[in-house]
Amino acid sequence: MEYSFQVHWGDTDAAGIVFYPNFYKWMDAASHHFFATIGHSTWRLFQEEKIGMPIVEAKCQFHSPLFFEDQVCVKSTIAELREKSFRIQHQFFRGEQLVAEGYEVRVWTKFGGDRPKAAPIPAELREKMQREAVTITREEGSW
Amino acid sequence: MEYSFQVHWGDTDAAGIVFYPNFYKWMDAASHHFFATIGHSTWRLFQEEKIGMPIVEAKCQFHSPLFFEDQVCVKSTIAELREKSFRIQHQFFRGEQLVAEGYEVRVWTKFGGDRPKAAPIPAELREKMQREAVTITREEGSW
Amino acid sequence: MEYSFQVHWGDTDAAGIVFYPNFYKWMDAASHHFFATIGHSTWRLFQEEKIGMPIVEAKCQFHSPLFFEDQVCVKSTIAELREKSFRIQHQFFRGEQLVAEGYEVRVWTKFGGDRPKAAPIPAELREKMQREAVTITREEGSW
Amino acid sequence: MEYSFQVHWGDTDAAGIVFYPNFYKWMDAASHHFFATIGHSTWRLFQEEKIGMPIVEAKCQFHSPLFFEDQVCVKSTIAELREKSFRIQHQFFRGEQLVAEGYEVRVWTKFGGDRPKAAPIPAELREKMQREAVTITREEGSW
Repeated sequence: MEYSFQVHWGDTDAAGIVFYPNFYKWMDAASHHFFATIGHSTWRLFQEEKIGMPIVEAKCQFHSPLFFEDQVCVKSTIAELREKSFRIQHQFFRGEQLVAEGYEVRVWTKFGGDRPKAAPIPAELREKMQREAVTITREEGSW
Repeated sequence: MEYSFQVHWGDTDAAGIVFYPNFYKWMDAASHHFFATIGHSTWRLFQEEKIGMPIVEAKCQFHSPLFFEDQVCVKSTIAELREKSFRIQHQFFRGEQLVAEGYEVRVWTKFGGDRPKAAPIPAELREKMQREAVTITREEGSW
Repeated sequence: MEYSFQVHWGDTDAAGIVFYPNFYKWMDAASHHFFATIGHSTWRLFQEEKIGMPIVEAKCQFHSPLFFEDQVCVKSTIAELREKSFRIQHQFFRGEQLVAEGYEVRVWTKFGGDRPKAAPIPAELREKMQREAVTITREEGSW
Repeated sequence: MEYSFQVHWGDTDAAGIVFYPNFYKWMDAASHHFFATIGHSTWRLFQEEKIGMPIVEAKCQFHSPLFFEDQVCVKSTIAELREKSFRIQHQFFRGEQLVAEGYEVRVWTKFGGDRPKAAPIPAELREKMQREAVTITREEGSW
């Protein structure tokens, strides 16, 4: 799954490069894009089913700075799929160059009760997520 | 009413100065601070009474750039008070220097029905707001 | 000139709508897009010629809230063109609906000397900017 | 070392809680605050000595959501100190409650040459950083 964006002027800082918290903003956007693309808009999930996916952990490693106007492609794959949570991995590419890579651990969460509560990821969605994981594994030539 | 803050590294852009949309972020923070200070937290208003104050217009003029680590004081006053809306004016000072000034027009709004609806500003709050307007007028020596 | 974007999750606030300072972030992005499109990347101007376009005034009026996942198109036109400054107008459309409209006043500025200094907009660029202004006027049927 | 802040309205998202990339913005602010407090403003370092501290890795774990108006205290300590890099750990407290904890790995970097280059952390600064590490260890009662 790919999510593309261009670095905006406001994403940079006084050192002339991207301010690093923006990478997490883009990982978040890539995750929402991921679910929208497999047919499960996170907005619809939240509005209609009171389902959200809060983050419990996020990490990113930065290999090379990004600059204003850079065109970036984020490749997102499901790296781990548990009953009520998953780890989605994001790789940032500028052309062929891997500039950063990270992941988010998100919990499938039912809101609207007394307090938010972790819930099992539905089977249909789980299957779609697994398919994205498989595709990537193949690309990486792990067979 | 005064709201103080320090410019953070992430507020700057590749030209080495503050990215201008941040001034509106600070005007918003100053407005929330204004209501909290006169005893009407906007969070409590929203949580308990479904009252919000969406912006219908905001303008800012920039006289001098702000830099990382600058200490800034925003002076906020009620510039206009109507039945269901008001204009709050914000002046940004770095020491004695006026670096920017702007305003927000906000509408007292009742959420939670079919659609958000403008509502009259309660008399008690109106009086407190007026007092802030008066104080400032005096300071400016207009009497 | 058109600049399109989608509202991200992080652009919203606890009232469920877009946090208003983001509109200025998008006006800024639309202005950079404007110059890139007519062949004058603001990044190249800044890197190679030490030319920037700091904002001296920006205003926006908000007619209707934006929500997560909204597709938005910003139409930008040159509303006023002076020797050393210009006013660029931005209209935000969600489909046919005008949700917000605003402008930025920017000054053509030479950096790198003792202090930044306003400079005349080059004739070639001025002509290209005027063309964008004319196109729009025509569209609005003012002839 | 402690850095305190209050959650702003614009830090929240449509789920009513803090949008998670903001935690990295606060870790960054806490790091700049750390160096300013021990007498080495990062701005002065960058302006006068062309020294920056770009991040090569950042991770955060989120235990409990933050809400608008929450008062938060970040406790920062040097968790690892190498010749040219260091790991600074940040713990987010709301009152007594640990709501999030993370770290940044930063590289002492000399800018201004052909390309940025890692450089040894000066002995005087290294000593001050170590002192902060020791203080914390004591507080945690590990002796």
